[in-house]
Amino acid sequence: MQIVFLFYDGMTVLDAIGPHEILWRLPGATVQRVAHRSGPIRSESCGLALNAEYALSEISRADILVVPGAGNAAALREYPEILAWIRAIHESTTWTTSVCTGSLILGAAGLLTGLRATSHWAVLDRLHTWGAEPVKQRIVEDGKIITAAGVSAGIDMALMLAAKISGQQAAETLQLGIEYDPAPPFDSGSPEKASPEILEALRARLMMKFEKE
Amino acid sequence: MQIVFLFYDGMTVLDAIGPHEILWRLPGATVQRVAHRSGPIRSESCGLALNAEYALSEISRADILVVPGAGNAAALREYPEILAWIRAIHESTTWTTSVCTGSLILGAAGLLTGLRATSHWAVLDRLHTWGAEPVKQRIVEDGKIITAAGVSAGIDMALMLAAKISGQQAAETLQLGIEYDPAPPFDSGSPEKASPEILEALRARLMMKFEKE
Repeated sequence: MQIVFLFYDGMTVLDAIGPHEILWRLPGATVQRVAHRSGPIRSESCGLALNAEYALSEISRADILVVPGAGNAAALREYPEILAWIRAIHESTTWTTSVCTGSLILGAAGLLTGLRATSHWAVLDRLHTWGAEPVKQRIVEDGKIITAAGVSAGIDMALMLAAKISGQQAAETLQLGIEYDPAPPFDSGSPEKASPEILEALRARLMMKFEKE
Repeated sequence: MQIVFLFYDGMTVLDAIGPHEILWRLPGATVQRVAHRSGPIRSESCGLALNAEYALSEISRADILVVPGAGNAAALREYPEILAWIRAIHESTTWTTSVCTGSLILGAAGLLTGLRATSHWAVLDRLHTWGAEPVKQRIVEDGKIITAAGVSAGIDMALMLAAKISGQQAAETLQLGIEYDPAPPFDSGSPEKASPEILEALRARLMMKFEKE
């Protein structure tokens, strides 16, 4: 089973690493990291670079494709070679997945037309731009495309995917292995739960950043 | 505020990236990644390499030190220069932290003698080796040392730390930013919640791997 992660400059690291930490442990999995060029790819996280072993042209198929998001995900509209690669890989996948604003990249690649999908809460309505129906859910499955909400939702998505692929017992074992028994010290993790002040301040900040790209 | 992550060969990526995704967003934070040598550091995750910009000798202080764990964390006993570096940096920190089996590394460095600490559930009792008192909790704070349980517990720890440093409103904003409103599809994330069959099979497998190192 060939699992392929798309890396790109400015990506949000946890979007990729949440699913990565779970999916690489699946029995029979091989994982490949691919980017516009091979080598270190600089994330949005204070200079942290992750290595992509492959350039786009070196990977022509995948059983599972994972597309992480980024504060600047909209900027990928300007990289037609990445979008064309996503479209081509999607032809071969069993599952095409995204985390956070990665769904806007799937949308820009033309994969979400007429489909239900989710994204980071702050940009959920942008899915309309690409002909998708925004759904306010942590994970949305439509056909073979699975989209997850903001950043940390990729962990939940990957566990769901692990159960589909290897069965619930294997997925529960993975959950125990990473001791995923979450206990956030506060309860501010969604727009419905956060205080209105925190929500509006963060929305304004994220939108400013997003529009700038 | 200088936040330093120790990277090393074979480390568990999510142990580092959970806290990293939160802490780099703190106001005024600079983040540095350091390893026995600078350059790409190969994790335990199917060949994924993360870049360390600094060698040990280039970093002499930190406000926050984060030590991730690994399936082979016990092997770090054999790297006295890493343990000596941890001891030296600890002198300068406001917080010295670990995720998962990273606490065994703090222990091997001699920092946990007489202290309460936690670790991945499968190796929790190994803390006795280093004179620490194992505590079955997701996060344990003793003086300026904070230890977190297995892998994903680093996310909860970092949010707690963010609140201590920048206040609860800032930490709640970070939680909303990464949409950390966890919804695991199963409830198998701790030894108490997992089925006995899953627990015993995984314990045996992890122990075999751990003893081998």
